[in-house]
Amino acid sequence: MKKDHETAFDDLCRHTRETALLAAAESALAWDERTMLPPAAAEFRSEQLTLLAGMLHARRTDKRIGEWLAILGDSPLAANLHDPSGTVIRELQRQYERRLKLPQSLVEELARTASLGQHAWEQARAKDDYGTFAPLLAKTFELKRAEADALGYQAARYDALLDDYEPGERTANVARVLASLREALVPLVAEIAASKKKPDISILQREFSLPAQETLARRGAEAIGFSFERGRLDVTAHPFCTTLGPKDCRITTRYDERFFSSAFFGVLHEAGHGIYEQGLPAEWYGLPPGEAVSLGIHESQSRLWENLVGRSRAFWQHLYPDAQKAFPAALGQTTLEEFYFAINDVRPSLVRVEADEATYNLHILIRFELEQAMLADEIPIADVPAAWNDKYEEYLGIRSHSDADGVLQDVHWSAGLVGYFPTYALGNLYASQFFVQAEKDLGALGPQFARGEFAPLREWLNKNIHQHGQCYSASDLVQKITGKPLSHDHLIAHLRGKLAPLYGLN
Amino acid sequence: MKKDHETAFDDLCRHTRETALLAAAESALAWDERTMLPPAAAEFRSEQLTLLAGMLHARRTDKRIGEWLAILGDSPLAANLHDPSGTVIRELQRQYERRLKLPQSLVEELARTASLGQHAWEQARAKDDYGTFAPLLAKTFELKRAEADALGYQAARYDALLDDYEPGERTANVARVLASLREALVPLVAEIAASKKKPDISILQREFSLPAQETLARRGAEAIGFSFERGRLDVTAHPFCTTLGPKDCRITTRYDERFFSSAFFGVLHEAGHGIYEQGLPAEWYGLPPGEAVSLGIHESQSRLWENLVGRSRAFWQHLYPDAQKAFPAALGQTTLEEFYFAINDVRPSLVRVEADEATYNLHILIRFELEQAMLADEIPIADVPAAWNDKYEEYLGIRSHSDADGVLQDVHWSAGLVGYFPTYALGNLYASQFFVQAEKDLGALGPQFARGEFAPLREWLNKNIHQHGQCYSASDLVQKITGKPLSHDHLIAHLRGKLAPLYGLN
Repeated sequence: MKKDHETAFDDLCRHTRETALLAAAESALAWDERTMLPPAAAEFRSEQLTLLAGMLHARRTDKRIGEWLAILGDSPLAANLHDPSGTVIRELQRQYERRLKLPQSLVEELARTASLGQHAWEQARAKDDYGTFAPLLAKTFELKRAEADALGYQAARYDALLDDYEPGERTANVARVLASLREALVPLVAEIAASKKKPDISILQREFSLPAQETLARRGAEAIGFSFERGRLDVTAHPFCTTLGPKDCRITTRYDERFFSSAFFGVLHEAGHGIYEQGLPAEWYGLPPGEAVSLGIHESQSRLWENLVGRSRAFWQHLYPDAQKAFPAALGQTTLEEFYFAINDVRPSLVRVEADEATYNLHILIRFELEQAMLADEIPIADVPAAWNDKYEEYLGIRSHSDADGVLQDVHWSAGLVGYFPTYALGNLYASQFFVQAEKDLGALGPQFARGEFAPLREWLNKNIHQHGQCYSASDLVQKITGKPLSHDHLIAHLRGKLAPLYGLN
Repeated sequence: MKKDHETAFDDLCRHTRETALLAAAESALAWDERTMLPPAAAEFRSEQLTLLAGMLHARRTDKRIGEWLAILGDSPLAANLHDPSGTVIRELQRQYERRLKLPQSLVEELARTASLGQHAWEQARAKDDYGTFAPLLAKTFELKRAEADALGYQAARYDALLDDYEPGERTANVARVLASLREALVPLVAEIAASKKKPDISILQREFSLPAQETLARRGAEAIGFSFERGRLDVTAHPFCTTLGPKDCRITTRYDERFFSSAFFGVLHEAGHGIYEQGLPAEWYGLPPGEAVSLGIHESQSRLWENLVGRSRAFWQHLYPDAQKAFPAALGQTTLEEFYFAINDVRPSLVRVEADEATYNLHILIRFELEQAMLADEIPIADVPAAWNDKYEEYLGIRSHSDADGVLQDVHWSAGLVGYFPTYALGNLYASQFFVQAEKDLGALGPQFARGEFAPLREWLNKNIHQHGQCYSASDLVQKITGKPLSHDHLIAHLRGKLAPLYGLN
């Protein structure tokens, strides 16, 4: 005979997994919308996605979940927080409580405002007209304050929002690490700007035929371990990675015939996300032990493969001959060293998604500082563009002359995503800290990359991160793997170690 | 104030349309499975489709449907059987009654047997081993007898099954028309076989590059009026057309580098299905006035564009210069007349899906006669292969030496599709009868095709067929449009009119 709590656990898992099957149908329709949908079909697809969202919401707030969790709370299955059953109970409890705390009216108003907000943002950005977007931005932050208050928090209101993307993380900790990062990064970027040594970035702006770009990008993704047996690569306008099932992870990219980097490094980035998804335990698909820990850890995997591997000299010692064969006119006369310097070009720029590995984190810091102030209502919405530009001047030494390339450049706030930005910087920090530990455990990785050997690193990541799903929080993982809490030191050491020789810094 | 029956009508339509939104999600996942799915993802997708099928079944048998229909049955909205509201009520009543008549246990056993049956059939066909499939075939026909008995019928048990694919059609009527067709067709095919004039079909077996095939096929589909603004063309193993929304119709094909006809005429065929789907009234999407009448009428649209248009001399007077440009090596030295004769080659063959326009209907006749006998239990399952071969010998003068190319060639029976085959022949018959009427109404169509003008015919089909959705049954439509019931005369006249000059027949 099964005990009550065993039956409750089975029922809870079955219900949750069925919800995941339906959510994966929603993801498949969303993937299709962004890669395949005939132009005239958008309106119907949006109606269909709304219906599915409603069905999913009903399943996720089903009262039986509360009943099952009540039986399970004190059961032996919940005893170990880090084993799969304990993780199922802990995480589903956390998600269910979070949903119950938010009044239906607030959820609906957030959704409506996000929908209106994204539309208004698109228009405002196209016309470079912040004024028309400002009222919706004000409304969004008002609702996000209400959301944070409904959810509750201890130290900072921002904690309640951050927790949705980086469970268990705290604003004060992120602020501490990012402040240290800024103190080291601003002078580094200034030193580089002052250096007379500059790469010839025109190398990357020659003619790169699309089919050859696709072939090389696929080879790169396959080399680092993205499985096309369990995944796909397609074309889209705004690249993303999505998972449609335990053995179905799809990455996307866009090709620019006159710029090498966007597709190639974009594919490595998305493949990094994909390798994490493909490495999660399939037997727990749809349940917390089979799902990614946090956005920050997810980003650590994409940035690790994109930057720490993909922008290393060793990686190109392996792949540059293929690149030269693929683009004989563009790269045939270019040395590996010239190419390597060009792909590691550092220069302050206005647009986050085009930023290099070093300055990128300053873009994030600016958003993190601003959105905290906005959430605290410490800065009038009308003054945000000026504050934005002042911070760019202070940290990056440049100033935008249009809001389209300034405060209006990102979709996040318009979509109600407040507390999301810091996960990008956390990803870079985690990646560097993990990479240092991987080299301690596996020996120098460069020589392996140069021989085309990426499996040891990938298996190390799988063993230490992927296979655990949500059994450990992001900060637990960092502590468990590296023996230390998160620090800015490793990222700075990595950047200085790579960039100082290139730019001839002290 | 709305009246009760108005509220019931709104509720019924809303419920049914929401079911259609979910069914379209199922179709999208099925399309993806056959065109895009990574190899390793098939098992999960199948689990997902099973969940959706269960949800759809629950919605379609929802007791409220019966309650709404009870209110609507005698209401003014049901008064006119051929207007949209009358059609909604009549057709949803028919579908709901049909579902209620089938016991849940029978539905489940049919689904299980179909799933096992298809698997066994695949294995049996691969090994050319009818014996391993025979028990499942026997079981399938046993269950189909039970299904027909549960549904009820007047004249023939087969009627109950045929009704699922060709609503309102009767076995006796189909038998009458197909028998007349056979009497005219068998001698025509024999005359052609005896003719000394033969086309040079090696013309079509030269090298046809895949990208050029795709370009030409898209041009053909676009020329006849398939909208790529509201549709797509992709690659698959077994071509099909599917509709994922009122403005989202997707067709598929497969390319053979050494055979021109399969992709090109396959695309015209699927585009013909697609033009019907794209021509249904979008405002009634998901409800009977916005859905296709029957499989036979659907097939009439695909066969009309594939054969009556696509295999006409006039069509190629328009497109042949493009074809020569696309394949200069293969077709540069081939005359239009040689090409036209080759694409109208008639010769008895064993495999239905490769059959020409004339012999195709004899393949259908054989299946129609056999499945009636099997349903009536007049022929032991063990004797079916011999009966199959005897009929091929009688009607086509050839005999298969393997069951793989004989009784095991089609998936239909293994999937529980009994009563489906005759709709293929009905489609050919409808198409010819409609085409004759179109020429009466629009004047000779050949000269229009030769000038690349296909819109008049397409608009005629839209006005007379597409826009009515299910407001008229298939036989009502034939009578309404042509003033006569279905007859074999038009198809025979078309075939003889085209083939006699080519083959030098009397």
